[in-house]
Amino acid sequence: MKVVKTIDEVRAQVREWRAQGLTVGLVPTMGYLHEGHASLIDASHRDNDRTVVSDFVNPMQFGPTEDLESYPRDIERDAKLVEEHGGDIIFNPEPSEMYHEGFSSFVDMTVLTQELCGLSRPVHFRGVCTVVSKLFNIVKPDRAYFGKKDAQQLAVIRHMVDDLNMDIEIIGCPIVREADGLAKSSRNTYLSEAEREAALVLSKAVFLGMDMVKKGEKDCSAIIGEMKKLIESEPLARIDYVKIVDCATMQQITCLDRPALCAMAAYIGSTRLIDNFFTEDV
Amino acid sequence: MKVVKTIDEVRAQVREWRAQGLTVGLVPTMGYLHEGHASLIDASHRDNDRTVVSDFVNPMQFGPTEDLESYPRDIERDAKLVEEHGGDIIFNPEPSEMYHEGFSSFVDMTVLTQELCGLSRPVHFRGVCTVVSKLFNIVKPDRAYFGKKDAQQLAVIRHMVDDLNMDIEIIGCPIVREADGLAKSSRNTYLSEAEREAALVLSKAVFLGMDMVKKGEKDCSAIIGEMKKLIESEPLARIDYVKIVDCATMQQITCLDRPALCAMAAYIGSTRLIDNFFTEDV
Repeated sequence: MKVVKTIDEVRAQVREWRAQGLTVGLVPTMGYLHEGHASLIDASHRDNDRTVVSDFVNPMQFGPTEDLESYPRDIERDAKLVEEHGGDIIFNPEPSEMYHEGFSSFVDMTVLTQELCGLSRPVHFRGVCTVVSKLFNIVKPDRAYFGKKDAQQLAVIRHMVDDLNMDIEIIGCPIVREADGLAKSSRNTYLSEAEREAALVLSKAVFLGMDMVKKGEKDCSAIIGEMKKLIESEPLARIDYVKIVDCATMQQITCLDRPALCAMAAYIGSTRLIDNFFTEDV
Repeated sequence: MKVVKTIDEVRAQVREWRAQGLTVGLVPTMGYLHEGHASLIDASHRDNDRTVVSDFVNPMQFGPTEDLESYPRDIERDAKLVEEHGGDIIFNPEPSEMYHEGFSSFVDMTVLTQELCGLSRPVHFRGVCTVVSKLFNIVKPDRAYFGKKDAQQLAVIRHMVDDLNMDIEIIGCPIVREADGLAKSSRNTYLSEAEREAALVLSKAVFLGMDMVKKGEKDCSAIIGEMKKLIESEPLARIDYVKIVDCATMQQITCLDRPALCAMAAYIGSTRLIDNFFTEDV
């Protein structure tokens, strides 16, 4: 396992693998890896001969008031985890390697990005689509792995790949949770002890919503109402959104008559966390 | 030489060539091919084992009041020309093959596209970048060929390829002119006999500007002034712009102290034509 810093090094390594007829999987991450990322690396290692993990805190997907500077980084710990899970390369470029002077191109879309996190983070998905496009062009993987925790991101990337004819298979992997239910996130590290306790209300709301769906509830406002009531009972939590949307369009629906995503974002103190479930997975 | 209509067919053919270790060149066109396109196909045929010519009038790069409907089409004549010049495939998709229902992704950039043609055609370069990205992802060529007549387009595509790490070599080919000097263009077919005569004023202005540069003139406003005066002497011509810009940034400059592009657009009757020269080529 090696850490590479330049685009040229990644390309040279992938070219060598390709010349040997090997398949390549890509796991794009912002580093500070946890078991959620590990499950993506495991999946790639299972499906492909070689696995590249990109480890890059992408400035372009952070808004001006967001946590770009404070986002946690630990490349040595990341390297250890990648090695343990069978990854072959970590691509860990400096921002200047990815965005040289005069950089001004971007990839974006006019639907899917206007709802959910796109509302509170208006430049976010442009940054995600652009950096993922760059990583795809650098690594040219056969398959790329994304977590379902970032459900809207997964939908946006699938749509981008389809619209722009990128010849890459996109694999979505299940949310990995702590023993008590909290969805794994690099941002959990921001939480104080009291906030860590309070954050549990998100996964509790997810489980409550799943339970209602399992019992046959079709009325989205009833499900959302109960979930919001639960989250609002926690004084340290402030809801950004709790919504149920069509999986294909990310547009809100009122009745569970098609595959849907129930997604939420909430601030616990000053930390914004997300969680969700797909009705198909209930 | 065969005409293929679907993305799957192109991919299957290119995959077969790749399995044989062959290199592939791409010549993106909107069809109604002329000697300008032929020179691109010749260049690709010379540099690559196989050449794909795309022949697609891309709706996304036309504004609502532009000539999408009337843009000339003649796939049979195009096929003959491609065959004569050593092309191996024409990719001639229907619009619905390239833009399925729900299509909403795009590639664009924040600089280079704000000047020259980008001012009079605000959605144009987003359409160009998007369709060229799609074609690159479908064909995955080693090299792609563009004419210098569309000088801003060439600069925009080079910038996009660089910014987004597309692993494709971009080759710019010289403008091809009629015997009397008029730059070859599919849109020349719109011109009446009188307009065809009047259109000559564009290339005459280009030659005048080149001559001034050759004689050592460094003052951009002097060069532009003389070129405009010449074009304005033609009653059927209406100038859109005559500008001298930095080759790298497409921003206007006042003094020829770096590699520059002198570009113009003018309406001859209702037909918008462009012409240009690079100071490096003088």
